Formats: sequence, structure tokens, C-alpha cells
Amino acid sequence: MKFFINKPEDAVNESIEGLLTDPKLTKLDTFPEVRVVTRKEIDKSKVAIISGGGSGHEPMHAGFVAKGMLTAAVCGDIFASPSVDAVLAAILAVSGDKGCLLVIKNYTGDRLNFGLAAEQARAMGHKVETVIVGDDIALGTDTQQRGLAGTLLVHKVSGQLAEEGKSLEEVLKAAKKVAESAVSIGLSLTEGQKFNNPEESRLDDSEAELGLGIHGEPGVDVIKMDKADALIKKALAELKKYLSDEDEKYVLLFNNLGSVTPLEMNLLVHSFDKTDLASKVKYLVGPTAMTTSLNMNGFSITLLKLDEEIEKALLETTETPEWRIREYAKPSSIKSPELPKKMQFEPSENEHNKKVVQEISAHLIEMEKEMNDLDEKVGDGDAGSTFAGAGKKFKSISDELPYASLPELFTTIGRVLARETGGSSGVLLSMLFTKAGSSLEDDDNVGKALLNGLEKMKSYGGAEKGDRTMIDAMQPAFEALSEGKSMDKAAEAARKGADETANITNTKSGRSSYLSESSLEGIPDPGAEMVARVFEKLVKIL
Amino acid sequence: MKFFINKPEDAVNESIEGLLTDPKLTKLDTFPEVRVVTRKEIDKSKVAIISGGGSGHEPMHAGFVAKGMLTAAVCGDIFASPSVDAVLAAILAVSGDKGCLLVIKNYTGDRLNFGLAAEQARAMGHKVETVIVGDDIALGTDTQQRGLAGTLLVHKVSGQLAEEGKSLEEVLKAAKKVAESAVSIGLSLTEGQKFNNPEESRLDDSEAELGLGIHGEPGVDVIKMDKADALIKKALAELKKYLSDEDEKYVLLFNNLGSVTPLEMNLLVHSFDKTDLASKVKYLVGPTAMTTSLNMNGFSITLLKLDEEIEKALLETTETPEWRIREYAKPSSIKSPELPKKMQFEPSENEHNKKVVQEISAHLIEMEKEMNDLDEKVGDGDAGSTFAGAGKKFKSISDELPYASLPELFTTIGRVLARETGGSSGVLLSMLFTKAGSSLEDDDNVGKALLNGLEKMKSYGGAEKGDRTMIDAMQPAFEALSEGKSMDKAAEAARKGADETANITNTKSGRSSYLSESSLEGIPDPGAEMVARVFEKLVKIL
Repeated sequence: MKFFINKPEDAVNESIEGLLTDPKLTKLDTFPEVRVVTRKEIDKSKVAIISGGGSGHEPMHAGFVAKGMLTAAVCGDIFASPSVDAVLAAILAVSGDKGCLLVIKNYTGDRLNFGLAAEQARAMGHKVETVIVGDDIALGTDTQQRGLAGTLLVHKVSGQLAEEGKSLEEVLKAAKKVAESAVSIGLSLTEGQKFNNPEESRLDDSEAELGLGIHGEPGVDVIKMDKADALIKKALAELKKYLSDEDEKYVLLFNNLGSVTPLEMNLLVHSFDKTDLASKVKYLVGPTAMTTSLNMNGFSITLLKLDEEIEKALLETTETPEWRIREYAKPSSIKSPELPKKMQFEPSENEHNKKVVQEISAHLIEMEKEMNDLDEKVGDGDAGSTFAGAGKKFKSISDELPYASLPELFTTIGRVLARETGGSSGVLLSMLFTKAGSSLEDDDNVGKALLNGLEKMKSYGGAEKGDRTMIDAMQPAFEALSEGKSMDKAAEAARKGADETANITNTKSGRSSYLSESSLEGIPDPGAEMVARVFEKLVKIL
Repeated sequence: MKFFINKPEDAVNESIEGLLTDPKLTKLDTFPEVRVVTRKEIDKSKVAIISGGGSGHEPMHAGFVAKGMLTAAVCGDIFASPSVDAVLAAILAVSGDKGCLLVIKNYTGDRLNFGLAAEQARAMGHKVETVIVGDDIALGTDTQQRGLAGTLLVHKVSGQLAEEGKSLEEVLKAAKKVAESAVSIGLSLTEGQKFNNPEESRLDDSEAELGLGIHGEPGVDVIKMDKADALIKKALAELKKYLSDEDEKYVLLFNNLGSVTPLEMNLLVHSFDKTDLASKVKYLVGPTAMTTSLNMNGFSITLLKLDEEIEKALLETTETPEWRIREYAKPSSIKSPELPKKMQFEPSENEHNKKVVQEISAHLIEMEKEMNDLDEKVGDGDAGSTFAGAGKKFKSISDELPYASLPELFTTIGRVLARETGGSSGVLLSMLFTKAGSSLEDDDNVGKALLNGLEKMKSYGGAEKGDRTMIDAMQPAFEALSEGKSMDKAAEAARKGADETANITNTKSGRSSYLSESSLEGIPDPGAEMVARVFEKLVKIL
């Protein structure tokens, strides 16, 4: 396993230093012996909310130090509780007359070190209360429940009430209510990897773990690796045991335990949304990494019953971007606009134009094998088939086209090419004809219209004349037409351009830029060759 | 590799469905054939901003559909451009009289499909402009530059100007300015893994890649795996070639390409902060996953020169939590409060109390081996040493203690135990003495004070009487004292309690809860035994 660190033992300190580039945050100058991150501006007339614990759970806790959430965070080593002195320093640094609340995740080390610091601060005359969060229901509720991501909900509610100027007693009461009511469970496909340990896993590819802690503790159950929907159902089956059957509304906290991708996190929300619990959820916190266990490939789900006080406190803004909450609802959809039909114009007659379309279509079909063979030498051997496919399509709809109007005809050809011809060339030619069609509405010079189309195609395709593409045949031919020259002259220009592509071996754009020079030498570009042949055919038709 | 998916081919659709539980968003009802995510409330009197491209880059693009950023996002398959019709549907669905801007990442497929849709929409009479973003400088600037995370800055600036009611021309001009000025480079330790492919990597543990795209394209250079600081320097060396030497201010976008942990992302910011570029950075966007490449273990850095228009537009709020920007500054610190000294009271004399402390200290030291041997049978064999360590400490400071005041003496014992005695038992006993010390200030009944301390210890430690801990000896002894009974009676109670622990084999809390019943049978708890022996010693001293 590779990590973005310098030395394992410096990772926690350096990560905190990175966070501290936020000028709203600062640290005690005894850092890094004592790792206390606090808000730079603290209103000591308000209750202070302090939390912390082992590191490796970022952005928890220091990432939630912000107006409306934590006043300070005390950070231990990876998965290790901070010292009593560090907690005491935080209390003394940020508490005012209204006192402070310590939000403690239920782990022995945190409970003891935060608890003792609280006692010592009290002995020094400070008002200190503590709330212990044990939202994990993996081991049942008649044992010591661990603190998981549900702790964040305690931070948010208590932080908001403190911000509103509530008393320590009021803040404590609300914090306890949230701590007692929030239930969480974790599910993971791999454990988090420590920076200094070799990569290893208790789990093979057929296994996942349910009910795990955030310090590398094994899950309560090793379960079969399964589809996302099935895994979510397994996790929810555990959570449901601790929810009332009543018609309650919940906030759902969907937490990424480390390295789940945003795509998968949203997918998991969708898996949740298919369950009957979804109808009870009013708000979603996440889905994102809020309480991680290093790079664990897993998630935790927390549910908290809403009441008026909790709902209001959760919805108030806070200054850290790590906190996010939004309404949760069944996905909706709106009516799609009607796309223009392939045939957006009425068929109309013009014998000459119809003959051109029919003959060129037939010619494209005829050339299929020969052009594929040519493309075999310098490309993927399907150029002939691509154009023959377009030819076949136009042949099949040759009675439906608006032949009487060139703008309409070109626009329709563009639309058909976009829908029916695969690959880049179909799109590029579609652009050319679409733009040429709209140009013809203003100016009936077909050559100029095609040049306008070519410019559009070049601007999106990125290739220029000389890059060994069909442009090398098109451009001189279109220029000739635009200058009022005959189709004979245009075809000559196209032929000359196509032949010259056999000498172009060094290009930056277009399909040939991926090929070696020796493989191109002496062979014309199939696209340019086809354009030249189409022009030569046009001379015969006209 | 294990993923949270159902079927690989459904992952993109299901992820979008999860996002759509946000009631501010909706989709066209032709989903999933056409994957268009739009805001539910669209003000068609404003310019619409549309972006999109292949999926696998979440939260880009659909996660940035929000007031002040995108009006709609068109989502293709993993790493594949959406169809022309999908883009056209988005344009027709959200554009009003002021028209729309398509923000296109510079990849052939996107350029062509978005470009053609733009042409078709124009042909239908819509005002459509396009901006192509190529912020990647990995391959230099005289070739086609790929679009990376810098695209987000175009979304934000154009989205904000559109929200402010600016014209399409004004929005386009600003978007082009950002697109031309933003420079990005990516660095990764592993490629992103596709859901349906076996796990494999081009890179071994000694390698990293610099200058990679976000679709699995190899990096321009395979570089040596190195410390975070060195990797950041390598990436910045490339970026610097495209920055002016002038005294410009920049916004820094620090993007997680997939599975880098929040801890590491902050650490990388710190690595950046050590470079001379840091002084030029005024704002930080991130550090978080904004433009991913599935679960790639890498990051990209984008720098954009600020001007008044860009700065203002970047700082305005938008409704998606995926966008985050904050000021960037050198870390600061504040003075730490002074912690109470270990000896916070003046030494004072009381022969009796001094004798007790000295004799008990000596007794703890004497018992070391015997208690370790006992602990060997039911624990980790260090209980004797832990208490002997405390004894040695108190012996060494026996001339410095405030013997004349019991509250001061107990509080000081608490403080010394917290600082000098390892493990949970030191912290637990510290709590007991700290609380007992403060209780003695209100009521000089030592037994009651010790009981108060014990309650505090129990509330944090979680163990109760009967859990085979020192509590089993302490509680009856303290109760005897608090009731005014003699030290003899207290010692008898402690002894009885300690002896009874030999019969306790099934506990839920405390150290013994991890041990099997047969290993505990008949052996007293070493902590309780030591407490009983201390009381028996006290009887002799007094």
C-alpha cells in the first residue's frame, strides 16, 4: 500500500497543519506535544463544545471545529486517545463562565482521559459537563456501545444550541438526548490500512464485515460479499431492531469510512432508497467521508429520530464545509422536451437533388470493401463500412427527404448522420452538414456554406488541413466551389488534396497522430480518398 | 477489488438515482436512456450552464447542478461521452431566451457530441455557446490539453455570472478567461479500477505517475514513489512552467482523484504549504473529491490566477455542498493556557499524613513481584509494577506534598497519579482522589469523600461492584468509613470483598471481561487484593 505521507509518525501532525491553513482555525502553541485545534474567534460568553479522540477519523474531529459546531478538538495519535493534559489545555483555553461540554466517543481511553481532565478542570473551578456517545448497535445495547459517526450529530446539535447562547444545562440535555437516540452500524469490504503496517486483510474477496468499529476492531459478523442492495439490507436489518415502529421521521447520516468512491456512495443511497425505511427519512447528512477509519472501504449508516429542537439545530448553517445536510425525498423526473424528429421537415421533391443523394449513397456502398482494405493499412479497417452504413441509411430513406430546400436537406443529412453513423466521423460530418444547412438560409452559395460547415467541424475536431484527414480533400474542393468554380475543378482539387495525404506522415491531430511514420508513407488517408471519389462521382452525375 | 455496486452496467444509473434523492434536483423522464440531471427550479430568464461528459468522475458533473453553478448535467457511461441527443435534450429542457453555455472538457468524444448538439440547437433557433476546457498541462500547451478538475472553476464562475443575470456573451467571456488561465496536473499512486475489470496496476510499489488523465490514460511520466513533500514538489515543478513570475494571487483547487483519505489530503495541503507557491495562494477549493477517476489513489492540483470578477464569483455561495472554498493562510497558533503544576499547592506538614503516604508507598513497592505473579494468572502481569511505580513516585516527592490539608493532599495525589501512573488504573485512581479532594472541601468525612470519588471513577470506568475489579474491595471499605466505622472494620470489609472476587468469573465490564471463566476461578483480582492489603497496612500504621 502506498500513501501520501512523509513519515508515518508525522502524518497526524502534518495533516493538522494542512487543515490549519484555514485562517478561521488555530492551534495551541504547545502543538504538536499537545494537539488542540480551536476556532480563532471564540465567544467566551457561550458554552464551549469540545470533542476529540484518536486521529485517523478525519475530518472528525478537527474538521468540525467551526462556528455552530465544535469550539475545539483534541487530537490523539492514530486510533489513540489524547492525553489528559491535552484535554485539560483545551478546556482551559476555550471555556468561559458558561462552561464547556465534552463530547466523548465511548472508548475506554477517551472516557478516562476526557473524564479525568473534566474532573481536574472542575477542581480548578470550571463548569464542565460530559456526554458519552455510544451509537453503535453492533454489539447490542446491554454492553458498552462504541461511538461512531453518530457523534457528529451530537456535535451539531450541541454546537448550535451553544451558539444560540443556551446554558450548559440546556446544551447538555439536548446532547444527551441525541447521544441516547442515535443508532449506527458500519459495514466494510476491507479494513483501514495503517501507514506503517504491511497491507493485509482479514477478509478475502468473498467476504465483508458487518458491525465493525473505527479502530480496526473486527466486525461482529463476517458476511458474504454481496450486491450493494443486499449489503444495505443486512445493515438495516440490524439498525431496525433499535427503531420504533411508530411513524417517526429520521435524519439519515451516510458516512464514507474512507475510500468508497462518491459514485458508490450515491449508489448506496439509492440502495437505501429502495427499502421501506426510506419513507421515514426527512434529511440526509452526507453521503461523504465524515468519520473515517483511515482508508477503510466501507460505510456507516446512522439514524436519529427528529424532534423540533434537533431538526432546527441540524438545519442551521455552520462554517465548516465538512458538515452537509439536505432534504431527502423520492427522486422525481420532469417531462423531456421533444427532440426534433430525424425527419424534421416534410418530404419535398427536386429530381436533381434526389439523384445526387441516391447516386452518392450507392457509391458509398460500392466502395465499402476497397476503403476498408485501404483503412486496414493505416487505421482500424472500418472506414469503408462506416461510410457504407451512412449510404445504406440514406438509400433507405431516400423517399422521405426534403429535396426541394437545400437548407432543409443539409440540416436533415446532418441529423441523420448524427443518429445513424457511428464514430467520430459521423459526428464530424453531421456538424459540417448541420452548419452548412443553417448557412444556406442566409446565403445560397453552397461552397461557402460547406466551408462554414468545415470550419465548425475543424473547431470541434481539432484537426487542420495537413493533418492527414478528409479535410485535406474537402477544403480545396469547397474553396473552389465557393469561388464559383465548376464541379470539375472542385473534384480536381479534392483529388490533389487526397493524393497529397500519402506524403503526410507526421501529424499532431486526427486519427493518424497515433501511427508511426513508416506505416503511413505512400498510403493516402481513406477519409480524404473517399471525399475525392465522391467529388469525382458528382462530376459524372451532374 | 470489491465494490459497492449491484451490476457494473447499472452503477452509473443507480448512483444518479441516489443523488436524485435531493429534492432540489430532478431528471428528464427519458432517464436512463438519456441521463440529464437538472435543477428542479430553473429561472429561464437566466443563461443556462450545461456541462457533462463521461461518468466515473463523481461528484462532477451532476453533483454540481445547483443554483449558482450548473443548470443541468448530461452524464455518459463510465469514461464515455453522452450522446448528441442527450446533450440536445438538456439544452432544450433548460435553455430560455438568454441561451445557454455548454462547458466541455477537452476530449474528442465530448467535444464532438456537445459540439454537434450545440449546432443542432442553434439550427432550431436556440442561442448556444460553448467553451472547451483544457487545463491539463501534462503534455504541454502546444497540443490538445485535456480537461481536468479546473473545469469546476469554469462551472462556478460562469454559473455565478448567469445567476446574476449576465448575458450569454458576458458569461462566455468570463468562462473562456477561466478556461484559458486555469492550469492543472495530476499525480497518482494507483489507477482507478473499473467495476468490471480485474484489479491490476501499471505501477509497482516503487512507482507513481505524474501527468495522468482521468480516464485511465497512463501518466506522462512514471516517477519514483517518494515522500509527500517530494511528490508535491515534482507536480508543482510542472505547473510552475505555466505561471507568471509576477506577484499574482491564485486560487488553489486541491482535488482527490478518488480514494485518498481526508487525513492525507490535508497532509498534502501542508506539503504544498511548505513550497514558495503557498504565499501566492489566497483561497483553497477542497481539499476533497471533486473530480474523481473512479477510485484512483491520487490528487490533482489546479491553480487559477485571480482577478476581481473571478474572485467575486468563486466566493458567492452555491447550493451544492460539493463546492467548497475557503481562505488560505499560513497556520497560526495561540498561547496555550498554563496547566496546573504537578505540585499546585505549597508543601505543608502533618506527621501522621506523611507517615501514611510514606508507609503505603513503601508497601506498594514491596508487593510488586507478588502482585505481578498474581496478575500473570488473570491479566497481563504488570499490576504489581504499575502500583509499585506509583509508590516510587510518591516516595520520591514525599517531602513536597501538602500534608496539612487533606483536600489539597488528595487533589495532589490525583494529579500525580494522572501524570505518572500508566494505564487505565492510574487515570481511574486519579479520578477517585481528585473527586475525593474536592468533596473534602465541603465535608470532612473522608469515607464519604472517597465514596464520591469512587462513584466518579465508576461512572467513567464503566465497571460496577461485582465486576471483579478493585471496586469490590474499595466500596465496602469506603462505606464502612463513611458510616464512621473503624479502620479495622474497613479493612475487614476490603478483605472480604477482595476474597470474594476469586468467585467472580462472569463479568461484563473491567479487565476480566475479556478472560475465560476457567482461567479466573479461584484467583482473586489483583487490584482488589492490593486494595485489601493497603487497608490492612493502614490498620497497622494507625
